[in-house]
Amino acid sequence: MPTIMVEGPKIDVEKKRQLVKKLTEAAVEVYGIEHIIVIIRENPPENVGISGELLADRKRNEDKTSG
Amino acid sequence: MPTIMVEGPKIDVEKKRQLVKKLTEAAVEVYGIEHIIVIIRENPPENVGISGELLADRKRNEDKTSG
Amino acid sequence: MPTIMVEGPKIDVEKKRQLVKKLTEAAVEVYGIEHIIVIIRENPPENVGISGELLADRKRNEDKTSG
Amino acid sequence: MPTIMVEGPKIDVEKKRQLVKKLTEAAVEVYGIEHIIVIIRENPPENVGISGELLADRKRNEDKTSG
Amino acid sequence: MPTIMVEGPKIDVEKKRQLVKKLTEAAVEVYGIEHIIVIIRENPPENVGISGELLADRKRNEDKTSG
Amino acid sequence: MPTIMVEGPKIDVEKKRQLVKKLTEAAVEVYGIEHIIVIIRENPPENVGISGELLADRKRNEDKTSG
Repeated sequence: MPTIMVEGPKIDVEKKRQLVKKLTEAAVEVYGIEHIIVIIRENPPENVGISGELLADRKRNEDKTSG
Repeated sequence: MPTIMVEGPKIDVEKKRQLVKKLTEAAVEVYGIEHIIVIIRENPPENVGISGELLADRKRNEDKTSG
Repeated sequence: MPTIMVEGPKIDVEKKRQLVKKLTEAAVEVYGIEHIIVIIRENPPENVGISGELLADRKRNEDKTSG
Repeated sequence: MPTIMVEGPKIDVEKKRQLVKKLTEAAVEVYGIEHIIVIIRENPPENVGISGELLADRKRNEDKTSG
Repeated sequence: MPTIMVEGPKIDVEKKRQLVKKLTEAAVEVYGIEHIIVIIRENPPENVGISGELLADRKRNEDKTSG
Repeated sequence: MPTIMVEGPKIDVEKKRQLVKKLTEAAVEVYGIEHIIVIIRENPPENVGISGELLADRKRNEDKTSG
Protein backbone atom coordinates (compact mmCIF):
# COMPACT_ATOMS: atom_id res chain seq x y z
CA MET A 1 0.00 0.00 0.00
CA PRO A 2 2.58 2.53 -1.12
CA THR A 3 2.02 6.17 -0.24
CA ILE A 4 3.35 9.07 -2.29
CA MET A 5 3.66 12.57 -0.85
CA VAL A 6 4.27 15.46 -3.19
CA GLU A 7 5.54 18.83 -2.00
CA GLY A 8 4.96 21.44 -4.71
CA PRO A 9 3.47 24.83 -5.54
CA LYS A 10 -0.27 25.56 -5.71
CA ILE A 11 -1.98 23.89 -8.69
CA ASP A 12 -5.61 23.74 -9.90
CA VAL A 13 -7.87 20.70 -9.46
CA GLU A 14 -7.44 19.49 -13.06
CA LYS A 15 -3.66 19.35 -12.56
CA LYS A 16 -4.16 17.49 -9.27
CA ARG A 17 -6.32 14.97 -11.11
CA GLN A 18 -3.58 14.43 -13.71
CA LEU A 19 -0.83 14.28 -11.09
CA VAL A 20 -2.62 11.62 -9.05
CA LYS A 21 -3.40 9.59 -12.18
CA LYS A 22 0.15 9.67 -13.55
CA LEU A 23 1.98 9.13 -10.25
CA THR A 24 -0.31 6.22 -9.46
CA GLU A 25 0.26 4.60 -12.87
CA ALA A 26 4.02 4.91 -12.35
CA ALA A 27 3.83 3.35 -8.89
CA VAL A 28 1.50 0.53 -9.96
CA GLU A 29 3.89 -0.41 -12.78
CA VAL A 30 6.93 -0.54 -10.50
CA TYR A 31 5.43 -2.02 -7.33
CA GLY A 32 2.79 -4.23 -8.94
CA ILE A 33 0.35 -3.04 -6.26
CA GLU A 34 -2.94 -1.39 -7.33
CA HIS A 35 -3.70 0.37 -4.11
CA ILE A 36 -1.65 3.60 -4.11
CA ILE A 37 -2.29 6.67 -1.97
CA VAL A 38 -1.14 10.12 -3.10
CA ILE A 39 -1.11 13.20 -0.87
CA ILE A 40 -0.51 16.55 -2.57
CA ARG A 41 0.81 19.40 -0.51
CA GLU A 42 0.69 22.93 -1.85
CA ASN A 43 3.32 25.17 -0.29
CA PRO A 44 3.03 28.97 -0.59
CA PRO A 45 6.24 30.54 -2.02
CA GLU A 46 6.98 32.27 1.29
CA ASN A 47 7.20 28.86 3.00
CA VAL A 48 9.85 27.41 0.68
CA GLY A 49 13.54 28.23 0.69
CA ILE A 50 16.01 27.40 -2.07
CA SER A 51 19.72 27.91 -1.52
CA GLY A 52 18.99 30.16 1.46
CA GLU A 53 16.42 32.42 -0.14
CA LEU A 54 12.62 32.36 0.08
CA LEU A 55 10.99 31.32 -3.18
CA ALA A 56 8.76 34.41 -2.74
CA ASP A 57 11.83 36.71 -2.71
CA ARG A 58 13.45 34.89 -5.57
CA LYS A 59 10.44 35.40 -7.80
CA ARG A 60 10.31 39.08 -6.92
CA ASN A 61 14.00 39.48 -7.79
CA GLU A 62 13.62 37.65 -11.08
CA ASP A 63 10.67 39.87 -11.99
CA LYS A 64 12.78 42.98 -11.33
CA THR A 65 15.64 41.66 -13.44
CA SER A 66 13.46 40.74 -16.36
CA GLY A 67 11.27 43.88 -16.02
CA MET B 1 10.39 11.93 22.39
CA PRO B 2 8.32 10.11 19.80
CA THR B 3 6.44 12.18 17.23
CA ILE B 4 3.24 11.03 15.55
CA MET B 5 2.01 12.62 12.32
CA VAL B 6 -1.52 11.94 11.18
CA GLU B 7 -2.67 12.57 7.62
CA GLY B 8 -6.45 12.58 7.51
CA PRO B 9 -9.58 14.48 6.47
CA LYS B 10 -10.81 17.68 8.15
CA ILE B 11 -12.16 17.11 11.68
CA ASP B 12 -13.53 19.43 14.39
CA VAL B 13 -11.57 20.50 17.46
CA GLU B 14 -13.30 18.03 19.80
CA LYS B 15 -12.21 15.14 17.55
CA LYS B 16 -8.68 16.53 17.46
CA ARG B 17 -8.70 16.59 21.25
CA GLN B 18 -9.77 12.93 21.37
CA LEU B 19 -7.32 11.91 18.66
CA VAL B 20 -4.35 13.49 20.45
CA LYS B 21 -5.41 11.97 23.78
CA LYS B 22 -5.87 8.44 22.41
CA LEU B 23 -2.82 8.35 20.16
CA THR B 24 -0.68 9.66 23.00
CA GLU B 25 -2.00 7.02 25.44
CA ALA B 26 -1.20 4.31 22.88
CA ALA B 27 2.33 5.62 22.34
CA VAL B 28 3.03 6.09 26.07
CA GLU B 29 2.00 2.48 26.73
CA VAL B 30 4.25 1.07 24.03
CA TYR B 31 7.30 3.33 24.31
CA GLY B 32 7.16 3.99 28.05
CA ILE B 33 7.92 7.65 27.31
CA GLU B 34 5.49 10.34 28.53
CA HIS B 35 6.54 13.10 26.20
CA ILE B 36 4.73 12.47 22.90
CA ILE B 37 4.15 15.03 20.14
CA VAL B 38 1.21 14.66 17.74
CA ILE B 39 0.79 16.72 14.57
CA ILE B 40 -2.59 16.48 12.81
CA ARG B 41 -2.75 17.32 9.14
CA GLU B 42 -6.11 17.92 7.49
CA ASN B 43 -6.02 17.24 3.76
CA PRO B 44 -8.81 18.55 1.50
CA PRO B 45 -10.38 15.75 -0.64
CA GLU B 46 -9.00 17.31 -3.83
CA ASN B 47 -5.45 16.85 -2.49
CA VAL B 48 -5.71 13.11 -1.84
CA GLY B 49 -5.64 10.37 -4.46
CA ILE B 50 -6.70 6.77 -3.92
CA SER B 51 -6.02 4.16 -6.60
CA GLY B 52 -5.46 6.92 -9.16
CA GLU B 53 -8.55 8.98 -8.46
CA LEU B 54 -8.98 12.17 -6.43
CA LEU B 55 -10.94 11.59 -3.23
CA ALA B 56 -13.04 14.60 -4.28
CA ASP B 57 -14.04 12.87 -7.56
CA ARG B 58 -14.63 9.57 -5.84
CA LYS B 59 -17.12 11.12 -3.43
CA ARG B 60 -18.94 12.85 -6.28
CA ASN B 61 -19.20 9.56 -8.17
CA GLU B 62 -20.48 7.69 -5.14
CA ASP B 63 -23.09 10.37 -4.57
CA LYS B 64 -24.28 9.99 -8.16
CA THR B 65 -24.46 6.22 -7.86
CA SER B 66 -26.40 6.28 -4.65
CA GLY B 67 -28.56 9.23 -5.76
CA MET C 1 11.50 22.40 -7.02
CA PRO C 2 8.88 19.79 -6.17
CA THR C 3 9.88 16.91 -3.94
CA ILE C 4 8.24 13.48 -4.05
CA MET C 5 8.54 11.03 -1.17
CA VAL C 6 7.53 7.44 -1.71
CA GLU C 7 6.82 5.05 1.16
CA GLY C 8 6.85 1.49 -0.15
CA PRO C 9 8.27 -2.01 0.27
CA LYS C 10 11.88 -2.97 -0.51
CA ILE C 11 12.65 -2.94 -4.26
CA ASP C 12 15.83 -3.57 -6.30
CA VAL C 13 17.93 -0.82 -7.87
CA GLU C 14 16.50 -1.31 -11.38
CA LYS C 15 13.00 -0.74 -10.03
CA LYS C 16 14.21 2.37 -8.18
CA ARG C 17 15.67 3.66 -11.45
CA GLN C 18 12.31 3.15 -13.21
CA LEU C 19 10.33 4.63 -10.33
CA VAL C 20 12.43 7.81 -10.24
CA LYS C 21 12.24 8.17 -14.02
CA LYS C 22 8.47 7.70 -14.24
CA LEU C 23 7.51 9.77 -11.19
CA THR C 24 9.76 12.59 -12.41
CA GLU C 25 8.21 12.53 -15.91
CA ALA C 26 4.74 12.73 -14.36
CA ALA C 27 5.72 15.66 -12.12
CA VAL C 28 7.51 17.55 -14.93
CA GLU C 29 4.41 17.28 -17.12
CA VAL C 30 2.08 18.60 -14.45
CA TYR C 31 4.26 21.25 -12.79
CA GLY C 32 6.24 22.34 -15.86
CA ILE C 33 9.36 22.31 -13.65
CA GLU C 34 12.35 20.15 -14.68
CA HIS C 35 14.03 19.97 -11.33
CA ILE C 36 12.25 17.23 -9.35
CA ILE C 37 13.63 15.42 -6.30
CA VAL C 38 12.44 11.91 -5.42
CA ILE C 39 13.19 10.16 -2.13
CA ILE C 40 12.37 6.45 -1.94
CA ARG C 41 11.80 4.90 1.45
CA GLU C 42 11.78 1.15 1.86
CA ASN C 43 9.79 0.02 4.88
CA PRO C 44 10.22 -3.53 6.25
CA PRO C 45 6.85 -5.37 6.55
CA GLU C 46 7.11 -5.40 10.33
CA ASN C 47 7.12 -1.57 10.35
CA VAL C 48 3.88 -1.13 8.40
CA GLY C 49 0.37 -1.63 9.74
CA ILE C 50 -2.77 -1.97 7.64
CA SER C 51 -6.18 -1.94 9.30
CA GLY C 52 -4.55 -2.65 12.66
CA GLU C 53 -2.35 -5.56 11.63
CA LEU C 54 1.37 -5.64 10.82
CA LEU C 55 2.03 -6.28 7.13
CA ALA C 56 4.47 -8.98 8.32
CA ASP C 57 1.68 -10.82 10.18
CA ARG C 58 -0.76 -10.38 7.33
CA LYS C 59 1.60 -12.05 4.88
CA ARG C 60 2.19 -14.93 7.25
CA ASN C 61 -1.56 -15.45 7.66
CA GLU C 62 -2.16 -15.33 3.91
CA ASP C 63 0.59 -17.90 3.40
CA LYS C 64 -1.09 -20.22 5.91
CA THR C 65 -4.47 -19.84 4.27
CA SER C 66 -3.19 -20.51 0.79
CA GLY C 67 -0.81 -23.30 1.95
CA MET D 1 -7.73 6.49 4.34
CA PRO D 2 -5.81 8.16 7.15
CA THR D 3 -2.09 7.47 7.45
CA ILE D 4 -0.16 7.65 10.72
CA MET D 5 3.63 8.00 10.79
CA VAL D 6 5.45 7.39 14.03
CA GLU D 7 8.99 8.57 14.63
CA GLY D 8 10.43 6.77 17.64
CA PRO D 9 13.30 4.69 19.00
CA LYS D 10 13.96 1.07 18.03
CA ILE D 11 11.34 -1.37 19.40
CA ASP D 12 10.80 -5.14 19.07
CA VAL D 13 8.18 -6.71 16.81
CA GLU D 14 5.72 -7.41 19.64
CA LYS D 15 5.72 -3.69 20.54
CA LYS D 16 5.22 -2.79 16.87
CA ARG D 17 2.21 -5.13 16.80
CA GLN D 18 0.73 -3.41 19.87
CA LEU D 19 1.52 0.07 18.56
CA VAL D 20 -0.19 -0.56 15.23
CA LYS D 21 -3.21 -2.13 16.94
CA LYS D 22 -3.69 0.69 19.45
CA LEU D 23 -3.01 3.61 17.11
CA THR D 24 -5.40 2.11 14.57
CA GLU D 25 -8.15 1.66 17.17
CA ALA D 26 -7.73 5.30 18.20
CA ALA D 27 -7.91 6.53 14.60
CA VAL D 28 -10.90 4.34 13.71
CA GLU D 29 -12.81 5.69 16.70
CA VAL D 30 -12.16 9.33 15.79
CA TYR D 31 -12.35 9.21 11.99
CA GLY D 32 -14.97 6.48 11.66
CA ILE D 33 -12.84 4.98 8.87
CA GLU D 34 -11.66 1.36 9.15
CA HIS D 35 -8.82 1.54 6.70
CA ILE D 36 -5.85 3.05 8.56
CA ILE D 37 -2.19 2.81 7.52
CA VAL D 38 0.58 3.06 10.12
CA ILE D 39 4.26 3.47 9.27
CA ILE D 40 6.74 3.03 12.12
CA ARG D 41 10.13 4.62 11.81
CA GLU D 42 12.93 3.61 14.14
CA ASN D 43 15.55 6.32 14.53
CA PRO D 44 18.98 5.48 16.00
CA PRO D 45 19.88 7.77 18.96
CA GLU D 46 22.68 9.38 16.98
CA ASN D 47 20.14 10.61 14.40
CA VAL D 48 17.90 12.45 16.87
CA GLY D 49 18.63 15.79 18.51
CA ILE D 50 16.81 17.22 21.51
CA SER D 51 17.44 20.81 22.57
CA GLY D 52 20.62 20.89 20.49
CA GLU D 53 22.17 17.65 21.72
CA LEU D 54 22.24 14.21 20.11
CA LEU D 55 20.11 11.69 21.97
CA ALA D 56 23.17 9.39 21.84
CA ASP D 57 25.29 11.96 23.73
CA ARG D 58 22.51 12.73 26.16
CA LYS D 59 22.22 9.07 27.17
CA ARG D 60 25.97 8.80 27.63
CA ASN D 61 25.98 11.88 29.86
CA GLU D 62 23.07 10.59 31.95
CA ASP D 63 24.85 7.27 32.39
CA LYS D 64 27.96 9.06 33.66
CA THR D 65 25.94 11.14 36.10
CA SER D 66 24.05 8.20 37.50
CA GLY D 67 27.12 5.92 37.41
CA MET E 1 20.46 18.13 -2.41
CA PRO E 2 19.43 17.95 1.25
CA THR E 3 15.89 18.92 2.17
CA ILE E 4 14.89 20.35 5.55
CA MET E 5 11.29 20.30 6.75
CA VAL E 6 10.33 22.41 9.73
CA GLU E 7 7.14 21.85 11.68
CA GLY E 8 6.42 24.89 13.84
CA PRO E 9 3.88 27.55 14.80
CA LYS E 10 2.76 30.39 12.52
CA ILE E 11 5.49 33.01 11.93
CA ASP E 12 5.69 36.17 9.80
CA VAL E 13 7.53 36.40 6.51
CA GLU E 14 10.59 38.14 7.97
CA LYS E 15 11.06 35.23 10.42
CA LYS E 16 10.65 32.76 7.56
CA ARG E 17 13.37 34.62 5.66
CA GLN E 18 15.71 34.36 8.68
CA LEU E 19 14.83 30.73 9.31
CA VAL E 20 15.57 29.70 5.73
CA LYS E 21 18.84 31.67 5.71
CA LYS E 22 20.12 30.24 9.00
CA LEU E 23 19.03 26.63 8.48
CA THR E 24 20.59 26.68 5.00
CA GLU E 25 23.90 28.09 6.33
CA ALA E 26 23.97 25.33 8.94
CA ALA E 27 23.29 22.60 6.36
CA VAL E 28 25.80 23.98 3.84
CA GLU E 29 28.51 23.97 6.52
CA VAL E 30 27.86 20.38 7.53
CA TYR E 31 27.07 18.77 4.18
CA GLY E 32 29.33 20.91 1.99
CA ILE E 33 26.47 21.11 -0.53
CA GLU E 34 25.17 24.55 -1.60
CA HIS E 35 21.82 23.48 -2.89
CA ILE E 36 19.53 23.14 0.16
CA ILE E 37 15.72 23.11 0.12
CA VAL E 38 13.74 24.22 3.17
CA ILE E 39 10.00 23.70 3.59
CA ILE E 40 8.32 25.53 6.47
CA ARG E 41 5.06 24.18 7.80
CA GLU E 42 2.91 26.31 10.08
CA ASN E 43 0.65 24.23 12.30
CA PRO E 44 -2.33 25.85 14.07
CA PRO E 45 -2.27 25.19 17.86
CA GLU E 46 -5.40 23.04 17.62
CA ASN E 47 -3.54 20.63 15.32
CA VAL E 48 -0.62 19.96 17.66
CA GLY E 49 -0.68 17.76 20.73
CA ILE E 50 1.93 17.70 23.48
CA SER E 51 1.81 15.01 26.17
CA GLY E 52 -1.80 14.22 25.24
CA GLU E 53 -3.17 17.75 25.24
CA LEU E 54 -3.86 20.11 22.34
CA LEU E 55 -1.48 23.06 22.26
CA ALA E 56 -4.59 25.25 21.91
CA ASP E 57 -5.99 23.93 25.22
CA ARG E 58 -2.64 24.15 26.93
CA LYS E 59 -2.32 27.84 26.11
CA ARG E 60 -5.83 28.52 27.34
CA ASN E 61 -5.08 26.76 30.63
CA GLU E 62 -1.82 28.64 31.09
CA ASP E 63 -3.62 31.93 30.48
CA LYS E 64 -6.18 31.06 33.17
CA THR E 65 -3.46 30.13 35.64
CA SER E 66 -1.47 33.27 35.08
CA GLY E 67 -4.63 35.44 34.81
CA MET F 1 8.01 22.40 20.19
CA PRO F 2 9.22 22.75 16.61
CA THR F 3 10.49 19.64 14.87
CA ILE F 4 13.07 19.70 12.08
CA MET F 5 13.52 16.77 9.70
CA VAL F 6 16.59 16.64 7.52
CA GLU F 7 16.81 14.43 4.45
CA GLY F 8 20.44 14.13 3.39
CA PRO F 9 23.29 11.77 2.54
CA LYS F 10 25.10 9.58 5.08
CA ILE F 11 27.30 11.59 7.50
CA ASP F 12 29.47 10.66 10.48
CA VAL F 13 28.45 11.19 14.10
CA GLU F 14 30.57 14.33 14.56
CA LYS F 15 28.75 15.98 11.62
CA LYS F 16 25.41 14.91 13.08
CA ARG F 17 26.40 16.55 16.36
CA GLN F 18 27.24 19.80 14.54
CA LEU F 19 24.10 19.66 12.40
CA VAL F 20 21.82 19.24 15.40
CA LYS F 21 23.61 22.03 17.29
CA LYS F 22 23.48 24.54 14.43
CA LEU F 23 19.94 23.78 13.24
CA THR F 24 18.70 24.03 16.82
CA GLU F 25 20.42 27.38 17.38
CA ALA F 26 18.82 28.72 14.19
CA ALA F 27 15.36 27.52 15.23
CA VAL F 28 15.68 28.80 18.82
CA GLU F 29 16.62 32.26 17.50
CA VAL F 30 13.66 32.46 15.14
CA TYR F 31 10.94 30.75 17.19
CA GLY F 32 12.09 31.83 20.65
CA ILE F 33 11.41 28.27 21.84
CA GLU F 34 14.21 26.26 23.47
CA HIS F 35 12.77 22.84 22.97
CA ILE F 36 13.63 21.81 19.40
CA ILE F 37 13.64 18.25 18.03
CA VAL F 38 15.82 17.32 15.06
CA ILE F 39 15.53 14.04 13.14
CA ILE F 40 18.31 13.25 10.67
CA ARG F 41 17.57 10.85 7.85
CA GLU F 42 20.43 9.38 5.84
CA ASN F 43 19.34 8.32 2.37
CA PRO F 44 21.54 5.97 0.30
CA PRO F 45 22.33 7.40 -3.17
CA GLU F 46 20.28 4.67 -4.85
CA ASN F 47 17.15 5.90 -3.01
CA VAL F 48 17.36 9.51 -4.20
CA GLY F 49 16.44 10.79 -7.65
CA ILE F 50 17.37 14.18 -9.08
CA SER F 51 15.85 15.33 -12.37
CA GLY F 52 14.83 11.75 -13.17
CA GLU F 53 18.13 10.04 -12.45
CA LEU F 54 19.26 8.09 -9.39
CA LEU F 55 21.93 9.92 -7.42
CA ALA F 56 23.89 6.63 -7.51
CA ASP F 57 23.89 6.63 -11.34
CA ARG F 58 24.70 10.30 -11.52
CA LYS F 59 27.81 9.85 -9.39
CA ARG F 60 28.93 6.93 -11.51
CA ASN F 61 28.51 8.97 -14.68
CA GLU F 62 30.39 11.93 -13.24
CA ASP F 63 33.23 9.62 -12.23
CA LYS F 64 33.46 8.28 -15.76
CA THR F 65 33.47 11.76 -17.26
CA SER F 66 36.17 13.03 -14.95
CA GLY F 67 38.18 9.77 -15.13
